[in-house]
Amino acid sequence: MARIIKRWPVTRLSTTGTPDTRADQLAGEEPLEVRVEGAAFSVTMRTPGDDVDLVAGFLVSEGVVWHADHLDRMRYTGVDTRGRRDDNVLDVALATGVAPPDASMARNVYTTSSCGVCGTASIEAVRKTSAFAVTGDAAAIGLAHLCALPDRLLAGQKVFGRTGGVHAAALFAFAGAHEPELLCIREDVGRHNAVDKVVGWALREGRLPLRGTVLQVSGRASFELVQKAAMAGIPILSAVSAPSALAVELGDELGLTVIGFNRGGRLNVYTGSDRVV
Amino acid sequence: MARIIKRWPVTRLSTTGTPDTRADQLAGEEPLEVRVEGAAFSVTMRTPGDDVDLVAGFLVSEGVVWHADHLDRMRYTGVDTRGRRDDNVLDVALATGVAPPDASMARNVYTTSSCGVCGTASIEAVRKTSAFAVTGDAAAIGLAHLCALPDRLLAGQKVFGRTGGVHAAALFAFAGAHEPELLCIREDVGRHNAVDKVVGWALREGRLPLRGTVLQVSGRASFELVQKAAMAGIPILSAVSAPSALAVELGDELGLTVIGFNRGGRLNVYTGSDRVV
Repeated sequence: MARIIKRWPVTRLSTTGTPDTRADQLAGEEPLEVRVEGAAFSVTMRTPGDDVDLVAGFLVSEGVVWHADHLDRMRYTGVDTRGRRDDNVLDVALATGVAPPDASMARNVYTTSSCGVCGTASIEAVRKTSAFAVTGDAAAIGLAHLCALPDRLLAGQKVFGRTGGVHAAALFAFAGAHEPELLCIREDVGRHNAVDKVVGWALREGRLPLRGTVLQVSGRASFELVQKAAMAGIPILSAVSAPSALAVELGDELGLTVIGFNRGGRLNVYTGSDRVV
Repeated sequence: MARIIKRWPVTRLSTTGTPDTRADQLAGEEPLEVRVEGAAFSVTMRTPGDDVDLVAGFLVSEGVVWHADHLDRMRYTGVDTRGRRDDNVLDVALATGVAPPDASMARNVYTTSSCGVCGTASIEAVRKTSAFAVTGDAAAIGLAHLCALPDRLLAGQKVFGRTGGVHAAALFAFAGAHEPELLCIREDVGRHNAVDKVVGWALREGRLPLRGTVLQVSGRASFELVQKAAMAGIPILSAVSAPSALAVELGDELGLTVIGFNRGGRLNVYTGSDRVV
């Protein structure tokens, strides 16, 4: 049975004190196989919980679905050695008329461009597959509100508080001078999974494209996180740590605001600074 | 041309000061397609640099090679739209007699066990494919030396110092009461890639299995990092942040020492505490 948190005995040592052994809580990590219409699509290591959101969001990121109606249903189809249902295989049925992904697509999204494998081709691939554009989303958020998001994210991290071992992503809706509203927060041992869980929740709630929202993440902003934000129509991505060069280039190309080092009342704006007032 | 560091203008805002715009340095991130004997094997987003080490280490992690002689040669085979060589496709030629990987293997390592997809099956898969065992490696390291490794790792991080945006892994050899010797340090936007680069360096230097060494990593200890350490015969994995439950279970099963929260003169030992004295 897949668990969100597991207990384990830990020995705590320090150069100044005496050893101390006690039970510690660890973040769960289990493989999840995703099947689409019965065909294997991907295997990801994830923290169990919110699997349906995770898979829905992953399918948004991969350009397979972009509306709640595109999904028919999902069900666990795995069985363990004793024939009992387990929670590590999730099969997705798509709605009539929705094209299932090419079997090789998930891992080869960067290789389809005629110019070969490079950052430019990767950016082009995202632009071609995204159903939404964020360039027209002119809503702006106040700097003080934006600077408060990392603390609000941390305050909402239930698993992190107990294990110290997971990443998180949270979606906030903002409008005018009001305090941004927390819509959804998700945690996972994988940074990408936490974002997929948030995007999948939004898809299933019928909220895509996510105009007027900011996605706050606990770690760095990689290319793939900007890609996921863009595929969901999120105009602002804010990270506690640094963005990569390709993440910033993709944000710039798509008109998405990329913010890094959002901590301690300061932040860096790399692209789309007109959305911060 | 793939670059390790790129420059980009950044606007720095704070709730107390005035805005300030200047050129910032960002960690490079580019896709690398790995081919084995001309056949596509994987695509990974990585920080350019040490690509040959990265691919060698990845092939160790996947159980394809475990000795320097198993590799014949590697060369860049990509071309851009103008027909010029680019650095984002690396083709590996294996030595005569070394079996190339199954095309679907890299992404399906967890699905081959008869008991389906679960943590237990994942652990079993690693045990079956690993050429080395660490259980017989009885060398121990002093606590004070172990506690000093995160600072030594940080001191060696050239790209982090300029960008704040990359993970790192370092390999140290220890023996008796001597200060551990830094063998190799590598950085990457991806945690797994930094470890693969270190392992690949060691493979090419003819140092596998890496008995009497500790692998210090800058972030968390996931299942896959323990897997990579085990495949290279590294007996101790030390992380600055938390391990996942499955990482600890794999370490326990294989007799590998897993250390977490190694910071500020303290650390937690989750498995194999007899290697810390």
